[in-house]
Amino acid sequence: MADLNLKSHRLEFKSALYLESGRILEPFEIVYETYGKLNEHKSNAVLVCHALSGSHHAAGKHEGDRKPGWWDGLIGPGKAIDTDRFFVICTNTIGSCFGSTGPTSPMFPRMEPYRLKFPVVTIKDMVKAQRLLLDRLGIEQLHGVIGGSMGGMQALHFAVDFPGLARHNIALAATHATSPWVVAFNKISIEAIINDPAFEGGQYDIEAIKEAGLKGGGVGRMAGHIGFLSPESMMRKFGRDYVAQDGLFDLFGKFQVERYLEYNGYNFPKWFDPLTLIYIAKAINIYDLSRGHDCLESALKRVSTPLHLFGFKRDLLFLPEEMESIAHAMAAIGKESLCHYHLVESDYGHDAFLVEIDRFSDTIADILRKDFDG
Amino acid sequence: MADLNLKSHRLEFKSALYLESGRILEPFEIVYETYGKLNEHKSNAVLVCHALSGSHHAAGKHEGDRKPGWWDGLIGPGKAIDTDRFFVICTNTIGSCFGSTGPTSPMFPRMEPYRLKFPVVTIKDMVKAQRLLLDRLGIEQLHGVIGGSMGGMQALHFAVDFPGLARHNIALAATHATSPWVVAFNKISIEAIINDPAFEGGQYDIEAIKEAGLKGGGVGRMAGHIGFLSPESMMRKFGRDYVAQDGLFDLFGKFQVERYLEYNGYNFPKWFDPLTLIYIAKAINIYDLSRGHDCLESALKRVSTPLHLFGFKRDLLFLPEEMESIAHAMAAIGKESLCHYHLVESDYGHDAFLVEIDRFSDTIADILRKDFDG
Repeated sequence: MADLNLKSHRLEFKSALYLESGRILEPFEIVYETYGKLNEHKSNAVLVCHALSGSHHAAGKHEGDRKPGWWDGLIGPGKAIDTDRFFVICTNTIGSCFGSTGPTSPMFPRMEPYRLKFPVVTIKDMVKAQRLLLDRLGIEQLHGVIGGSMGGMQALHFAVDFPGLARHNIALAATHATSPWVVAFNKISIEAIINDPAFEGGQYDIEAIKEAGLKGGGVGRMAGHIGFLSPESMMRKFGRDYVAQDGLFDLFGKFQVERYLEYNGYNFPKWFDPLTLIYIAKAINIYDLSRGHDCLESALKRVSTPLHLFGFKRDLLFLPEEMESIAHAMAAIGKESLCHYHLVESDYGHDAFLVEIDRFSDTIADILRKDFDG
Repeated sequence: MADLNLKSHRLEFKSALYLESGRILEPFEIVYETYGKLNEHKSNAVLVCHALSGSHHAAGKHEGDRKPGWWDGLIGPGKAIDTDRFFVICTNTIGSCFGSTGPTSPMFPRMEPYRLKFPVVTIKDMVKAQRLLLDRLGIEQLHGVIGGSMGGMQALHFAVDFPGLARHNIALAATHATSPWVVAFNKISIEAIINDPAFEGGQYDIEAIKEAGLKGGGVGRMAGHIGFLSPESMMRKFGRDYVAQDGLFDLFGKFQVERYLEYNGYNFPKWFDPLTLIYIAKAINIYDLSRGHDCLESALKRVSTPLHLFGFKRDLLFLPEEMESIAHAMAAIGKESLCHYHLVESDYGHDAFLVEIDRFSDTIADILRKDFDG
């Protein structure tokens, strides 16, 4: 087995990215990582798309890292997305805060951060930008595109917006149009951020927040953590255990689950920019695969290569029924042979696509290997 | 049919209420409402217990009210809790903010509000206080005690702490011990409140907040509203409708569900005191029916009159499985004949016990009428 061959890249685009809103992003940059090697015919590329707080760092470790990339269990030599066979690309989506152009990037020509002058970007825009990157890399066809949650939305958009670009379109724990339930969770994050006086209407010191955090952003993230889990997985993880030194009748004494939420909540704004959170939440909120088409079925009519849909049984953010309804729509237009719906047995909750990889990795491996002769 | 005979009352207790924490409340007051008439033998009383943000105003309207009490669909002449037969009592729990002694009440002897000096009260304490009220009213036995959510926890405590006091103990949408999932939702409320600078460490102007609200309390309540509903009921209620005048690509343009959350969230602290919310959330968080007993089964051994448990199918806060587990525990100690578990078909979510009354009111009516000869 070869090693992971992790490489980091940055590409500048001098041309404009025309956004769904009618606005443009010009110039713009995309940072991305690659794993494995591109073959001679450039036919072995697999594009991996990240979720809300994810980044282009999907696998392996950089020097000094404690933890590997967010889908390290799935990507690597001999793993389901096998870097001995495939050349894996993961970009940071535009609008995010890990290096690709987003709200904290310098705005041409004054080179001050965009902040609230950044245009609203959509999942469709994120996919369009990735398509431009593939063009620059000379990759005309992908062997596969895959992602979970917001990454799954991107995989679905690839299938509809660029039919046939990927031989396999694999979407996990996503939907075809964001439900009000998810919008409600995002609402808590957005309101908690903008209410925090330290947000300063978006004019906060971007570097200082990385040290100090932003309490509102922390509270919003706590809501996120509820959405990522399920009642069952929270019970397994924390039970009703109390923090040992706290008294049960102390008003602010804590359960373990509260300590977990505090820790993960309040640290979040230190590594994920709050303005960016508002933009990414907006992109998720207004995501609708059928926008610009008469209906979902008419959008799906464009799909020309297999669509693989994974729903997770106790995902309370993106219900498995929502993924299944895409399969029903495909069947309704006579494309059932192009669509494969998998229900993953799990009571972990939404984050199962990140945490319980062994429950679906063999299926992913089979999908990617079947008609690959690279 | 007689009319509702709604009456408001206030009772002062000069004696101490000994709390589970070891602290005392002295003096204390209980406000309550009654509906119907107490019969000669004082044998027709039904005690109704309210939930987190509920009050003693359970049925009917006071002059000028737009909306009736919170369980008006269930309580009244000819209704399931039939005020033509029963004398219905609903108290405001101690620790709440609608007139019974709580964190905003004057603290003897200086008569300034308790605020954070108020002792932690528990569900057991709330029940104990109600028991003292019944004593004062000369009611030795209740025909029934009933409540949903935190009210259901109270009904369960009545069955365990005062066996036989009620001929029927009816708990809806509750549990025997609060899950980390619920603690997590409450955590958002608590953190959002205490982070708000206008909370002033609990020293805010209590009357001014009723006008101005408290943004943090509003954000916390938004999390509450997620917990009260389900993905399905949110979809039915709001769909993906956008507020008409907002542009889809405006960063702060709103979906209908967002407008709903803003309205109900930010209004909440105007009618429900934020300090009180912290105390009531605490009481719910540390609720455990088996505290002071070896285990749940040993607590339930005390139950001597029928326990009627109602779980709601898509209640995501208090899972129907949690209610069912109480029935399993009753069976394990040979008390299955005293326990009746009902699964209510509903996908509304937790608030079904308030909103979808017609799905369970006939069953409640049957329970209360069966062996009532008053």
